[in-house]
Amino acid sequence: MRILLSNDDGIYAPGIRALRKELQKLGEVVVVAPATEQSAAGHSVTLLNPLLVTEVYEDDGQTFLGWAVEGRPADCMKLALLELLPEPPDLVVSGLNAGSNAGINVLYSGTVAAAVEAAFYHYTAIAVSLEYTKNARLDWPTAADHARKVIETILSHQPAKGSLFNVNIPPLERGPVKGVKVMPQNVSVYEEKFDRRVNPRGRTYFWTSPDFRCITPHPDTDVTALADGYITVTPLQFDLTNHQVIQHMQTWAWGEG
Amino acid sequence: MRILLSNDDGIYAPGIRALRKELQKLGEVVVVAPATEQSAAGHSVTLLNPLLVTEVYEDDGQTFLGWAVEGRPADCMKLALLELLPEPPDLVVSGLNAGSNAGINVLYSGTVAAAVEAAFYHYTAIAVSLEYTKNARLDWPTAADHARKVIETILSHQPAKGSLFNVNIPPLERGPVKGVKVMPQNVSVYEEKFDRRVNPRGRTYFWTSPDFRCITPHPDTDVTALADGYITVTPLQFDLTNHQVIQHMQTWAWGEG
Repeated sequence: MRILLSNDDGIYAPGIRALRKELQKLGEVVVVAPATEQSAAGHSVTLLNPLLVTEVYEDDGQTFLGWAVEGRPADCMKLALLELLPEPPDLVVSGLNAGSNAGINVLYSGTVAAAVEAAFYHYTAIAVSLEYTKNARLDWPTAADHARKVIETILSHQPAKGSLFNVNIPPLERGPVKGVKVMPQNVSVYEEKFDRRVNPRGRTYFWTSPDFRCITPHPDTDVTALADGYITVTPLQFDLTNHQVIQHMQTWAWGEG
Repeated sequence: MRILLSNDDGIYAPGIRALRKELQKLGEVVVVAPATEQSAAGHSVTLLNPLLVTEVYEDDGQTFLGWAVEGRPADCMKLALLELLPEPPDLVVSGLNAGSNAGINVLYSGTVAAAVEAAFYHYTAIAVSLEYTKNARLDWPTAADHARKVIETILSHQPAKGSLFNVNIPPLERGPVKGVKVMPQNVSVYEEKFDRRVNPRGRTYFWTSPDFRCITPHPDTDVTALADGYITVTPLQFDLTNHQVIQHMQTWAWGEG
């Protein structure tokens, strides 16, 4: 099995290295990932800058690891599938991200966007993220082991081409995971703050605060199950149409617009 | 009515200026938009850089226009709603974007992301984009007039709080619009190319090609109706869960993960 692996924390991040080791148990892994951290890149793509591409080798300097791209996660995926890989992959994986991508964070996430981009092209794609508590040391090998097992379960059910999944692993420093729950994406808003400051030249600027909390998650969603200590698996799709209201809207009188 | 206006082409782009003029017929408009072009920013947000904010005035230097933010469209929306606006808006509009945001472009679009972000916070939000043919001179006043009329129709139906709409206007240089169609988002992939080059230092880089075409759009979608000369309106939502498969997946045996 040929596996394409990407992420949004960058090709040198510990999460992608740990996940690569585990995925090598399933097949041949090639990495195409951003050269630098691209957290919260969402599904952005690079139109105005050139995408510099560099071959990267393992620490031995001999074993080919893949390509670092000076761009966004979605750029990496496009370049991998259209330009860089000698053969199409059988599976695309994105992660292991440092920090969960549950609830509306799915839309901010570069990790998920890389997987969505692969699904555009009808590849089966799985995004995997690891939640952690502040200042914790992340147990990447255990997280990667969980990720591989969940991926194996998904593959054992032979998902249709272009199937897309979002996997979140709870904070391992709190204890062993309680199991796996298949859950829908939570859609409620997060509480968020900005830190307002004035620079030495008298100009106002804001820092995004790291405190970003979902105050009222729905009880049966990815956010709540993850907080309860479960690995969550959410099947995703990328049709943003609100199908519940579209038929009604088609009866409206629109005039000539 | 208080209207918050944003975009992804930047606060000085002609599209947002034309749309502001039209929206002033409906109420008081405050602009919070990126200081520079942020096309294809998707739903990215800025975590690692400070968000510099500048008050912007009309060309007379006296009339307050709004704030320019050194950030992404979604950053602008968060800052506007949480920090900058003295009172919550009754309506959020994003646009007029130069270029359509139909089909999977909805996911790449900073224009749409600004509207989605507002909908996270339960504001009614409408993204508006103008398609154009290569090298055409864009007729912003006519496009903005169309946009206002469509927005008026939507508002006349008193949409629920947090309702989200994506509006696309066809290329006006091809002739008058044929009318308005309410259409779902097309989900099929686009044909895309990269231009591979080598820099003077021997390093490989790629440019994203401007030729980005949907080869096989579904006949009853935003992409096809727009190509046929109709203004398209698509109600959107931001739950990416694939609800068609989730119940089946909940029956799978996951082991301990």
